[in-house]
Amino acid sequence: MRILGIDPGTGILGFGVIDVIKGKSQLVDAGVIRTSSKDGDAERLQTIFEELTSVIAETKPTEMAVEKLFFAQNVTTAMTVSQARGVVLLAGKQAGLSIHEYTPLQIKQALTGYGRAEKQQIQEMVRVILQLKDVPKPDDCADALAAAITHSMTMR
Amino acid sequence: MRILGIDPGTGILGFGVIDVIKGKSQLVDAGVIRTSSKDGDAERLQTIFEELTSVIAETKPTEMAVEKLFFAQNVTTAMTVSQARGVVLLAGKQAGLSIHEYTPLQIKQALTGYGRAEKQQIQEMVRVILQLKDVPKPDDCADALAAAITHSMTMR
Repeated sequence: MRILGIDPGTGILGFGVIDVIKGKSQLVDAGVIRTSSKDGDAERLQTIFEELTSVIAETKPTEMAVEKLFFAQNVTTAMTVSQARGVVLLAGKQAGLSIHEYTPLQIKQALTGYGRAEKQQIQEMVRVILQLKDVPKPDDCADALAAAITHSMTMR
Repeated sequence: MRILGIDPGTGILGFGVIDVIKGKSQLVDAGVIRTSSKDGDAERLQTIFEELTSVIAETKPTEMAVEKLFFAQNVTTAMTVSQARGVVLLAGKQAGLSIHEYTPLQIKQALTGYGRAEKQQIQEMVRVILQLKDVPKPDDCADALAAAITHSMTMR
């Protein structure tokens, strides 16, 4: 099973692809899609859609795991991130992926067994589970991989 | 100039197309795109994207005017509507439209000259400006037409 994890955002969107073979997860690819604040909303969303569609075409995942915002201190930020999420879900659907959404709480619990784990603990668990030398950088990559790993654990 | 106005939403999305000829607006088409709450987020967004893309292909507007949320009492609703907005902006961009966003305040001021106008006043102005016998129904259609009319007035 190949899973594409996504940490949605407009300025920077993290993605991470893992293979799950006999219950073991391994890294296939990870990176970020950046858009410029000089561009309009529609142009930034188009960049995200097109680059993500390319990532899907190149890595050929069958499942998509997307981090779900369920609250936000800043409503404007929540709305901007949600616009990007809309385009991410569409790109996955158009490519025929099976789509799954996980809240930060579910991700924390899946990776550390503890819903209030620190961001750093999550990232360290991503490193350990994928047997990497270093934590993937930037944070958006590690967060995307955490969503993918959560899905692999939920599927078991 | 042909303008497509959009009132974004997930369960029901309003659209309205107007022609502006010698400064006068006239109705070309208006309707709604509905999605079922039984479907997942991604499926609903795909329905919106595909149906809106069909509306654009059939009516061939050159400009898109989208109502912009700038606050919301309910963050969950704001995030769901924003996901739909993301897909709407993408559909417009992919079709090569010039995209413009207007806040409810801008729409109220453009149509009535008064930023605190009631929803009913706005709808009545849509009816009068487009010389229609009745206010377009449902409300989502009238709101979409109001966004299109706002754009036509801003362009003058």
